[in-house]
Amino acid sequence: MSNIKVGYQGVPGSYSEEALLQYFSEDVSVKQYELFEDVFQGLMEGEIRYGVLPIENSSTGAISEVYDLLNRYDNYIVGETFVKPAHNLLGMKGAKIEEIVQVYSHTQGFEQCKAFLDQFSFLQIPYYNTARSAEYVSQLGNPTIAAIASKKAGMLYDLEVLAENINSNKTNTTRFIIIGNLLEVNPSCNKISTVLSTKHQAGALYKTLENFARNQINLLKIESRPVQHTPWEYYFYIDFEGNVKDLNIIKAVDQIMNDSSHFKLLGNYKKQIG
Amino acid sequence: MSNIKVGYQGVPGSYSEEALLQYFSEDVSVKQYELFEDVFQGLMEGEIRYGVLPIENSSTGAISEVYDLLNRYDNYIVGETFVKPAHNLLGMKGAKIEEIVQVYSHTQGFEQCKAFLDQFSFLQIPYYNTARSAEYVSQLGNPTIAAIASKKAGMLYDLEVLAENINSNKTNTTRFIIIGNLLEVNPSCNKISTVLSTKHQAGALYKTLENFARNQINLLKIESRPVQHTPWEYYFYIDFEGNVKDLNIIKAVDQIMNDSSHFKLLGNYKKQIG
Repeated sequence: MSNIKVGYQGVPGSYSEEALLQYFSEDVSVKQYELFEDVFQGLMEGEIRYGVLPIENSSTGAISEVYDLLNRYDNYIVGETFVKPAHNLLGMKGAKIEEIVQVYSHTQGFEQCKAFLDQFSFLQIPYYNTARSAEYVSQLGNPTIAAIASKKAGMLYDLEVLAENINSNKTNTTRFIIIGNLLEVNPSCNKISTVLSTKHQAGALYKTLENFARNQINLLKIESRPVQHTPWEYYFYIDFEGNVKDLNIIKAVDQIMNDSSHFKLLGNYKKQIG
Repeated sequence: MSNIKVGYQGVPGSYSEEALLQYFSEDVSVKQYELFEDVFQGLMEGEIRYGVLPIENSSTGAISEVYDLLNRYDNYIVGETFVKPAHNLLGMKGAKIEEIVQVYSHTQGFEQCKAFLDQFSFLQIPYYNTARSAEYVSQLGNPTIAAIASKKAGMLYDLEVLAENINSNKTNTTRFIIIGNLLEVNPSCNKISTVLSTKHQAGALYKTLENFARNQINLLKIESRPVQHTPWEYYFYIDFEGNVKDLNIIKAVDQIMNDSSHFKLLGNYKKQIG
């Protein structure tokens, strides 16, 4: 396993890194990228064999940029994994919660810990992401300044947990996808992701969707994104149950390709419980 | 008309104000709000009779917050209108484009004028929105600092147009909705907006969508948003053609309500060409 290189967007201690290590165990070598698109580029250029990217959050919804990139680049989704961000208030060693004045985090970190934060009157300072907030607070070295981030970020940047698991919404979960250059299918793959746009004619969308019904295929999700330069036309990202070798899937996909002006198979992988 | 009060989120010179004046003409009295949600609150408390809100952009997609608010508040969509943001480089009177060093705008303003901006080496400073950038640049009074905003913002804040209509994507359009407290239906209304969530059982989504096909209803758009506190369940915002008094619509809506765990009619209004 140790020769496999896997990339993610972010820094050590981020939830993307957590997703990567959870899916691959610690035996892979890991490469960090600055932007989501850099991960797609890294795959294309052969720097990494797989990339790990957040695709949707159960509270805030789709991560649109990643959907758009999946359509633009020719990679395949080969797996998925779920991470429940567990936020913590992190301060300098010896810091006391009652002496904290300022808190750094991503705006979503603040939102997700609203009930906890409402008990205090910390000045909330938005920062790039949760893990970089922890890094920055560690650099500042001021016992009145704290960060909201993962426990691992706290460990990495030598901070102390002042309050543990402070998320308001305990069900909040992020779904990550694993992408690679090849379609990787085996009999355990039971979830298919596609993107399509319909022909420009009345009834085109339900005509496309009818193919799922007619072939007894269970739709899991539909996400829509605008087609650039063609106002009010959409790409539909459709996830459904099945394996590309199943007869009903082969039939449906064939019909859907006929009924669509654009169709791309984004991957066939094992559905996880999140 | 002059007694009708209409609200929008933003400041004078914004594209939301432009949408409002385009839809209602100049005969209404106008109220500005700080947040999208304030417009819904203003309607509920009777401060305004209508509100105007951006719902989607042809390049960047859905404005999720407005979708979520439509589901939470009990208002109705009574109309829609389209605005093509026409951006301009605005500077102090007498300023010269070759002496500009810094430019303020919303990040989307920068994105939408990328080809123009690539010709120069301005320092781009992100600001709250395009109109407030113009206001701020006017306050600074420095001939080397410019803003990207509408012509009207330039006029209001006494700035000069240094470069006109600098958008890269000339098709870029924002769709705005008009919301009110009452369902306003007349025979010219030919577009219906709904939000629903499906029952938690296999095939529930295609079962719901089948009702549109069976009743020859043309789907215009599907947008999905997460159900809070229930990971991986979704609200589907479905727009389709028809009038709530048409027989096929009455039949379909009745069946869909039976097949859904949540269903809300968001409005019936006249479809515009954007």
